[in-house]
Amino acid sequence: MDGEKEKTLIEILEENIHVDLAKYINFVRTPQSGAIATFSGTTRDTFEGKTVLELRYEAYVPMAERQIKSICSSARISWNLDTIAVAHRLGPVPVGETSVFIAISSVHRADALDACKYVIDEIKASVPIWKKEVYTNGEVWKENSEFLERRVDFGGNSSGSLDREGGACCGSKVKVATQERKGCCGNKVKVRDEEVAYASRNDDDDVVEEKIK
Amino acid sequence: MDGEKEKTLIEILEENIHVDLAKYINFVRTPQSGAIATFSGTTRDTFEGKTVLELRYEAYVPMAERQIKSICSSARISWNLDTIAVAHRLGPVPVGETSVFIAISSVHRADALDACKYVIDEIKASVPIWKKEVYTNGEVWKENSEFLERRVDFGGNSSGSLDREGGACCGSKVKVATQERKGCCGNKVKVRDEEVAYASRNDDDDVVEEKIK
Repeated sequence: MDGEKEKTLIEILEENIHVDLAKYINFVRTPQSGAIATFSGTTRDTFEGKTVLELRYEAYVPMAERQIKSICSSARISWNLDTIAVAHRLGPVPVGETSVFIAISSVHRADALDACKYVIDEIKASVPIWKKEVYTNGEVWKENSEFLERRVDFGGNSSGSLDREGGACCGSKVKVATQERKGCCGNKVKVRDEEVAYASRNDDDDVVEEKIK
Repeated sequence: MDGEKEKTLIEILEENIHVDLAKYINFVRTPQSGAIATFSGTTRDTFEGKTVLELRYEAYVPMAERQIKSICSSARISWNLDTIAVAHRLGPVPVGETSVFIAISSVHRADALDACKYVIDEIKASVPIWKKEVYTNGEVWKENSEFLERRVDFGGNSSGSLDREGGACCGSKVKVATQERKGCCGNKVKVRDEEVAYASRNDDDDVVEEKIK
């Protein structure tokens, strides 16, 4: 795939902007492609028996975009891909709606399918996007368990610090202490300092629950 | 997943009816799902250096539907899935358009992603759908190499017979000789007997070229 044909679109969407699946699918649809694989992450209605009303996402946008771009570049090394589109919504995402969407095209189907799985796994593991689950009886910040695992693997800790030193997490050495987290997440959703202590992990495949201090 | 929630939609679309991706994605989108994986098989513009104008698909519809249903049931045994939608278009499919589409939802993403790959692989390997590639300088019938391999594995041959005895291919014992192929493919696209001799295989992942007698 030459440089001209190697197209990648990454969009972090502002609050209340829906993920337009057709837009991204059409973006990756090319005459030379025989396959398009997609993945949608959607808000589900229950977690550990509790009724979920919505998820709220926050991101440090420049770093998130940079890290997603790096993931897409890595995918192109491993697979023969035509076009990649990745979109992630910020702010509240009601039950049933899409928060993250990946669309990848390739000549042969195995490339797009395998790369799609890789990209979502890597996004969960290494992109600085956080979510708050809003239940009928309260709300709690979550973090992907994969993100935590990657952080621990590369010398981070799980005691409350968001220290990403080690670089592998975010592609470059960035140190974000607990106290700095509000700045890290931007100003779209308020984050109370007392909500930021990570404590317990669970068996769910994509979240780790935090304790409220 | 109880029976009521276990929904599967299978549609073999008549000639010139586009695959409505949004319809199938919305069909599998459920409040209890956290993930939707999809796969689109699309017509690509070249094959072995030849310019492709369009593909034409034919199917023995009742058997194709039955076999796809069986594949979906098998997927549900291996993965925890919410809803499955499979659509396959018949007749001409121009370059860039979708011929086959799979959408699968699940609580956790690995189930939908892995099942999506399984379902398209099995469709290619065992569903009686044939395609004709229409080039700028002629046209030729194709068959999935996986289909041929599966047939050989279960006692078929690659000498021109479409003998599916062995059952594993189509879910039930059906014997379709070369001379009977027109009946098998329905009447949507004409098939000349002299086009039906399978001879050479190639390294492409999803087609095997036929010789014109």
